Amino acid sequence: MDNTSNRNWDNDHFMHPWEGMDYLGQNDRVFIEASNGVYVTDEAGKQLIDGPAGMWCVQVGYGRHEIADAMADQARKLAYFSPFNNTNSVATRFAREVAKRAPGDLNHVFFTTGGSTAVDTALRFVHFRNNLLGKPEKKKIISRQKAYHGSTYFAAAVSGKERDRLWLDKPNELAHFLPDVNPLVRKPDQSVADFLDEKVADLENAILTLGAENVAAFIAEPVLASGGVIVPPVGYHKRCIDVCHKHDVLYISDEVVTAFGRLGHWFASKDVFDIQPDIIICAKGLTSGYSPMGAAIFSDRLMEDITGADGQGATFSNGYTYSGHPVSAAAGLASMQIIEREGLLEHVRGVAPLFQERLRGLSDLPLVVDARGMGLMGCVQCSYKGDKNSTLENDYALGALIDMECQELGLVLRPIINMCVMSPPLVISEDQINQMFDILGQAIRKVDSVKGV
Amino acid sequence: MDNTSNRNWDNDHFMHPWEGMDYLGQNDRVFIEASNGVYVTDEAGKQLIDGPAGMWCVQVGYGRHEIADAMADQARKLAYFSPFNNTNSVATRFAREVAKRAPGDLNHVFFTTGGSTAVDTALRFVHFRNNLLGKPEKKKIISRQKAYHGSTYFAAAVSGKERDRLWLDKPNELAHFLPDVNPLVRKPDQSVADFLDEKVADLENAILTLGAENVAAFIAEPVLASGGVIVPPVGYHKRCIDVCHKHDVLYISDEVVTAFGRLGHWFASKDVFDIQPDIIICAKGLTSGYSPMGAAIFSDRLMEDITGADGQGATFSNGYTYSGHPVSAAAGLASMQIIEREGLLEHVRGVAPLFQERLRGLSDLPLVVDARGMGLMGCVQCSYKGDKNSTLENDYALGALIDMECQELGLVLRPIINMCVMSPPLVISEDQINQMFDILGQAIRKVDSVKGV
Repeated sequence: MDNTSNRNWDNDHFMHPWEGMDYLGQNDRVFIEASNGVYVTDEAGKQLIDGPAGMWCVQVGYGRHEIADAMADQARKLAYFSPFNNTNSVATRFAREVAKRAPGDLNHVFFTTGGSTAVDTALRFVHFRNNLLGKPEKKKIISRQKAYHGSTYFAAAVSGKERDRLWLDKPNELAHFLPDVNPLVRKPDQSVADFLDEKVADLENAILTLGAENVAAFIAEPVLASGGVIVPPVGYHKRCIDVCHKHDVLYISDEVVTAFGRLGHWFASKDVFDIQPDIIICAKGLTSGYSPMGAAIFSDRLMEDITGADGQGATFSNGYTYSGHPVSAAAGLASMQIIEREGLLEHVRGVAPLFQERLRGLSDLPLVVDARGMGLMGCVQCSYKGDKNSTLENDYALGALIDMECQELGLVLRPIINMCVMSPPLVISEDQINQMFDILGQAIRKVDSVKGV
Repeated sequence: MDNTSNRNWDNDHFMHPWEGMDYLGQNDRVFIEASNGVYVTDEAGKQLIDGPAGMWCVQVGYGRHEIADAMADQARKLAYFSPFNNTNSVATRFAREVAKRAPGDLNHVFFTTGGSTAVDTALRFVHFRNNLLGKPEKKKIISRQKAYHGSTYFAAAVSGKERDRLWLDKPNELAHFLPDVNPLVRKPDQSVADFLDEKVADLENAILTLGAENVAAFIAEPVLASGGVIVPPVGYHKRCIDVCHKHDVLYISDEVVTAFGRLGHWFASKDVFDIQPDIIICAKGLTSGYSPMGAAIFSDRLMEDITGADGQGATFSNGYTYSGHPVSAAAGLASMQIIEREGLLEHVRGVAPLFQERLRGLSDLPLVVDARGMGLMGCVQCSYKGDKNSTLENDYALGALIDMECQELGLVLRPIINMCVMSPPLVISEDQINQMFDILGQAIRKVDSVKGV
């Protein structure tokens, strides 16, 4: 690799997501060039454990020849077909396999190109359905602070407030946000049980205040991922879905992060949280990130009253050139087969206790405000002097320092501001889990020893 | 292939784009299973010329082992990296190659997952930029009837009116539509020159009526593709961009269909229409459809006044997990190399005259209202009794009959209602072009001979 040319080209031509305008063209980003299992290799040839699994997505790990071969075979046979007019057996089989694993009557798989378009599709469908049912006012979507549901104009509207100033417009009139559900933020004298009651009441009060006739859906990640791995109190989702259904409000479970094994099950909604959502969103783990794909999975129940010969000739005029892309579907099927054959769901359930124990073992370190998680998701929230209300600037600086130390010691961390988030490939071994947390602990101690601010 | 199982699974689980609710689960779609060059093979083993090239996308044709191998090599080496925090040389090189071919100072490539997300990104950027420049009111987007720019909530808002009743919501307050620019619809006594003046005046009047201080951008396909291959009068785009820039309105050229060779050039804006847009959108031909990818390409000029250390710390908080996906970038680079090595741009310029001649040769057939096109894009608009204002129902029925005859004779047509649109893979030979139009002519004659309505 010609590092100089590539670096210049990256600065000059590759505009990255969440690009900061102050430093456009001067970021000198680190190149990741190779990978294997849970490891990625940077441009200097240094091998690092990939803490975030790409971006919560490389479930089966890197370098899977089996997936690469399946994609190439499909590309040679039929790289593309139009899903508007025709169909293809690989996308069909994948739709069937996804539906088979989705809980209950979630049988209609609408493929998209990733999580954002899957959320956009789900929200547009909810509007479409209410228009057909003669409820054109029932359109508002309830979401939560710190939620992340994507970055199309509509998906961004239901993503919770960021700490940075937001310079982009969103259709805010369609969204309503509930307060943070993280038990960490409860009042000092408040029990978790009381906090739970309050969070469920937040939802019901919002529905009543907005008017149930104006509220189309509640959208929620089972565990708020990029918000900082926020695990709501036990029982939260079950009580929320009951509140929703009591008021004829749909429950959309955004499982972009939690589906396909992150919590030890294909989908977390039913198996972990005991709820039967009306719509499930997935992406990322759907193909282990090997090829872009997302999906909105709709229940039979949602279709029943709007389909059939008396359906007013309504067309759900939404979809993409690349809906059900055959190469992405082939990648998804191959990834699914690996998860199954290697028993990765069981593996996650087996190693998660160690992961969570090592994670929580960092709680006592200086700088650590909270260490929380579930399954193979973890977050170590840091702050100078353990201050929960530190300034944004200090938090960014601290996160960057810990990140740098981890990189030095062999771990890709990539904190979200001051939140060290971990969601490694599901294939991670107990030794590698120990190594990962050893490094993180060492990095935090090192940064603390140097002091700052 | 087990046809019965697959068909049931397709009906039950694969919810397709633009799915009609009346027949959900009963569509019995035809499976496309294999492909080679300009041909696809259906489930019955029948080989057909692919008139639409998938969906205006398979530029280099099907079955390219070179692309499949490049994708597999990349998937084995590094199937994924996070573009938020790091970079990778394959996406970087592709950004550079795209920027090199894009006209003038269009140097900043923002990768997305397809055309819809590229349009969504461009429109959000335009808003972002005006917010930064202290022009929060300058937000409206001018588009045109029969335009198609995608299906996210925002992209759908700038897509022109459909003939079907639309059951979905859109942020209509952000969009303003100009009348059809198809010379076919001009008044009987109106010259094309007068019609052109009128269409340009439509744009300027709209800007003046809305107030230039409220108009952010004009978005236009060089040739309106799925609207029915509408070619505006010569000089239209050049005069429109002058009007835009006179009023400080950005010009967004949606080249999802026209870029990467469809009109014989990498991009059509400059080389065919002699304009230098502020933003170009591309997708489809970007990877020849082998892997999902789109891009919004921004000019240096748009960045200059919002970047730098006094840029207010603004972050363009938009982007996707799969922005700059390495496998998609590898597919794009390989496709680009094929286009270059095989001289496909020159090939298109060489065979386009025959294509356009054969296309226009169908004008005299019964049922044909108009035959129009440019480069390797063509549309034969049909109607019973040559009636331009036929009912929607009749038009659908007629299109379906012609489609069925073409399928029988060995051509995938897939008309847009009554518009027989052709955009074959760029590798199509003169013999195959002749074959394609022979079949279409034969099919139209056959349908006419049977009569209807």
